Amino acid sequence: MGKPETGWRQRWYTIIFEADTREGRQFDVALLLAIVASVMVVMLDSVPAIHARFGIAFTVLEWMFTLLFTAEYVMRILVVRRRLRYVFSFFGIIDFVSIMPTWLAFFMPELAFLIDVRLLRLLRVFRILKLTVYFEEAQILYRALANSRRKIAVFLGTVFIITVILGTVMYVVEGPENGFVSIPRSMYWAVVTLTTTGYGDMVPKTAVGQFITSLTILLGYGIIAFPTGIVGAELAASIIRRPLTTRTCVHCLTEGHDPDASYCKHCGKKLPPYQVEVGDQT
Amino acid sequence: MGKPETGWRQRWYTIIFEADTREGRQFDVALLLAIVASVMVVMLDSVPAIHARFGIAFTVLEWMFTLLFTAEYVMRILVVRRRLRYVFSFFGIIDFVSIMPTWLAFFMPELAFLIDVRLLRLLRVFRILKLTVYFEEAQILYRALANSRRKIAVFLGTVFIITVILGTVMYVVEGPENGFVSIPRSMYWAVVTLTTTGYGDMVPKTAVGQFITSLTILLGYGIIAFPTGIVGAELAASIIRRPLTTRTCVHCLTEGHDPDASYCKHCGKKLPPYQVEVGDQT
Amino acid sequence: MGKPETGWRQRWYTIIFEADTREGRQFDVALLLAIVASVMVVMLDSVPAIHARFGIAFTVLEWMFTLLFTAEYVMRILVVRRRLRYVFSFFGIIDFVSIMPTWLAFFMPELAFLIDVRLLRLLRVFRILKLTVYFEEAQILYRALANSRRKIAVFLGTVFIITVILGTVMYVVEGPENGFVSIPRSMYWAVVTLTTTGYGDMVPKTAVGQFITSLTILLGYGIIAFPTGIVGAELAASIIRRPLTTRTCVHCLTEGHDPDASYCKHCGKKLPPYQVEVGDQT
Amino acid sequence: MGKPETGWRQRWYTIIFEADTREGRQFDVALLLAIVASVMVVMLDSVPAIHARFGIAFTVLEWMFTLLFTAEYVMRILVVRRRLRYVFSFFGIIDFVSIMPTWLAFFMPELAFLIDVRLLRLLRVFRILKLTVYFEEAQILYRALANSRRKIAVFLGTVFIITVILGTVMYVVEGPENGFVSIPRSMYWAVVTLTTTGYGDMVPKTAVGQFITSLTILLGYGIIAFPTGIVGAELAASIIRRPLTTRTCVHCLTEGHDPDASYCKHCGKKLPPYQVEVGDQT
Repeated sequence: MGKPETGWRQRWYTIIFEADTREGRQFDVALLLAIVASVMVVMLDSVPAIHARFGIAFTVLEWMFTLLFTAEYVMRILVVRRRLRYVFSFFGIIDFVSIMPTWLAFFMPELAFLIDVRLLRLLRVFRILKLTVYFEEAQILYRALANSRRKIAVFLGTVFIITVILGTVMYVVEGPENGFVSIPRSMYWAVVTLTTTGYGDMVPKTAVGQFITSLTILLGYGIIAFPTGIVGAELAASIIRRPLTTRTCVHCLTEGHDPDASYCKHCGKKLPPYQVEVGDQT
Repeated sequence: MGKPETGWRQRWYTIIFEADTREGRQFDVALLLAIVASVMVVMLDSVPAIHARFGIAFTVLEWMFTLLFTAEYVMRILVVRRRLRYVFSFFGIIDFVSIMPTWLAFFMPELAFLIDVRLLRLLRVFRILKLTVYFEEAQILYRALANSRRKIAVFLGTVFIITVILGTVMYVVEGPENGFVSIPRSMYWAVVTLTTTGYGDMVPKTAVGQFITSLTILLGYGIIAFPTGIVGAELAASIIRRPLTTRTCVHCLTEGHDPDASYCKHCGKKLPPYQVEVGDQT
Repeated sequence: MGKPETGWRQRWYTIIFEADTREGRQFDVALLLAIVASVMVVMLDSVPAIHARFGIAFTVLEWMFTLLFTAEYVMRILVVRRRLRYVFSFFGIIDFVSIMPTWLAFFMPELAFLIDVRLLRLLRVFRILKLTVYFEEAQILYRALANSRRKIAVFLGTVFIITVILGTVMYVVEGPENGFVSIPRSMYWAVVTLTTTGYGDMVPKTAVGQFITSLTILLGYGIIAFPTGIVGAELAASIIRRPLTTRTCVHCLTEGHDPDASYCKHCGKKLPPYQVEVGDQT
Repeated sequence: MGKPETGWRQRWYTIIFEADTREGRQFDVALLLAIVASVMVVMLDSVPAIHARFGIAFTVLEWMFTLLFTAEYVMRILVVRRRLRYVFSFFGIIDFVSIMPTWLAFFMPELAFLIDVRLLRLLRVFRILKLTVYFEEAQILYRALANSRRKIAVFLGTVFIITVILGTVMYVVEGPENGFVSIPRSMYWAVVTLTTTGYGDMVPKTAVGQFITSLTILLGYGIIAFPTGIVGAELAASIIRRPLTTRTCVHCLTEGHDPDASYCKHCGKKLPPYQVEVGDQT
């Protein structure tokens, strides 16, 4: 298993796992279309009117997709060099989880909807389109989130404590006769209210309850500012810090020197004088 | 057609297409008023009580406006030098689309409401008022959006996948008996909830559903932070990077001196007096 | 009228218009309490249960407050030196408008609620507490708003056009049978939806309508980012640009020189070397 | 009382008040679990279905927790050196308030739900986990809030005045027949609307009311931008101002070199190697 594959396995490996040849790209595009079609079938099948008319056709289609994806999964295991590594890789697990539900639905029909997990296979689209630049953007967003993780933990902890206290207070003030039948349900109301969602399925009826609600929503107003502010601030910082210049050291070719730099920060050689380029703005 | 027009066509071209002469401006203002009046008629005509009383008058007015705009459109084609270029220009298409609905409504009355497309003709107002500065502002907003397009694509993709998964989960958990009659309808609920709109036409009834909903809304809270943060960060970056001035010391060529500075902060020599440039402020 | 007043008018002017003496402050505090009490009376009188029990007492109180404020207004005119200037000043107009409704309510009782205009008199509180610093903060907010006025105009224009188009589309798609009885009412729904308020009094019932609504709300999500981003960016810019240092020129005592400055930007003299102060952060 | 304790009091003091020994940590973890369990009991007991089945068991559990916490409270007073200082400290008051409700519920059963105050005892978790870094994050958020306190006061004042005026206007326009039964209740509606919560329990029915509501929500849209913008701007400022490093060139004393710099960008001399400080990242 440790040496390079030859013959049909090498050939199919290139088609199935890579997207650089014409056949490889065609395979990936066909796969994506099948995934989308498969998810669409599950969605449409849940609409009663459509199910009544096309139910049997959908079941047949669903089994065809499952057989197709199962064959693909077996093929992947056959042609790959390091089998266990693929099976327990991110895409390997998704591929497996995507074909399980239909088989399991034999025994437990309510699992049928797990088929939508297949949607995660769409992440392959990034590999096909070679849109690595999108990965970079996603990473900027992810890093902004990661940098803020402790602030967000403090924020969520605060929200949780407020939710419990508010839920308890409103349960006492409004009581079951106004729909606040228990503390957990009042906490549900508190979340719906603090986030300014406001379904309206539970609303305060008493004057005291409405007064507390008014104060609470204004509080929620202040609270909503925090995640926005935190994430926005991290993003702004990363954008503003993004190197302004494309100054390049003529000796070691390092890029992105500060506008006020006189010497290369990498090799210490003198930099050419800085000339502002027109349209350098982001 | 390639040579400069003379006579009545030149004269009417100046009136219809330009806004620099007194007659040209008067024509444009009259046109704008007609457009607004025409849209108002369509709006008011849709109110049953008003339609009952003024329905016939409105139909007459509507035809008058359509004849007027058709005459204007024909006139524009007659006097313009490069006819095809106008017909397929942004405003040329809007002008055409604005007069079609009434004519088409002969055959398909339900198209009558396309008349509101005329509203887009109001964009001409920018040309009349010469508010090019507004175009600049719009361009700043547009550029902030353009700079963030990949981040927004990643964001929308994430929202879409969350919507599908959440819609499927709630369809399984709540089921048709609580209003979640199909996955597409559950996805509609997911969008209404994640964005904290919360109509309340579909609400979770089961304890599990309410728990999932609470978590979901808090998730939506975190998600709402992203577009705000992205756009805000881009705007902030463009505002903060905007140099306060481009004042340059004539002795040591240091840039970016404060508007109130009299001497170079770098070499201490006298700065030339600062002259505010018009439109320098946002 | 142009010369300094003496005698009782000078004495009362100090009491009524100024807040530096003990009596002046006492007068202003008493006035504020009367204003708050007067607004509370109007509010409570609107609650049917309270009106039934205390209605007559409230009417008497209301007249007492009106007589009191009328006497105060007459007194202000008597003791002030430049009468017209006071009458047409900001506070002069508010003072007048605050006493009018009760008198006018003789003839038009529905005007009684204009009495709440008195609330604006509470702005006097700033003068008493000498909280000029709050004025500064208000001015920062106001300037952020003013700097963004053109961006906000472009934003509101965009929102208006979207509202009209969306209202028209939903009127055609959903129709009067689903509550979208006219285009203006559909526009009301569009505003309620785009801003993620979502009352739920009007909701899409058809599948097409719900699909359009889902797209619309996600659009509204992106749109809500703009005012937040605009105002936030202006505020961030003003905070970040706020001078970091308290470096003071020893020659001309100008403050707030940049950290990298070597010479005073005001007088051109050499600045003392910059030493970072601990806890300089905002 | 002023001298160090010895014997059993010293031993128990270490266990109860400190978390550095193994026994001390075990005590704290057990305490936290008891607090969480106690709050869970109160929550679950409020659900009718669960109360019907486990009501008596919950009452017994509740009394056990109360006796346990009372014993712990007495013990804390016994072993602590400065009794009054503990009793009136932040945690001392919370500890006391946490055991009172069950005792008071003998006489006033409706106080039973105050037991949830015990949740505040969970703040002890920070001491156990030594998550001082979270305190720092909380402090950054707190400082952002503190820096903005005057802006927020101006903002809340503005919101309050708008609420009163809007509530009065809608009370006059819509009137009791459409649910706006009093000015305070209309103010409740105004808060629910301005914050884009939109329960839908009170909605405008008249055309004028819907028009005013549309304008109001757009206003609320602009207003929501302020707290977000204020807090976000303060956070962004604190993040952006944070120097990337405090690396200083030992030759020319220029500060703030990039983490990857090897040579001073100002004088070109070699920089000392960069050592990352622990906890330097947010």
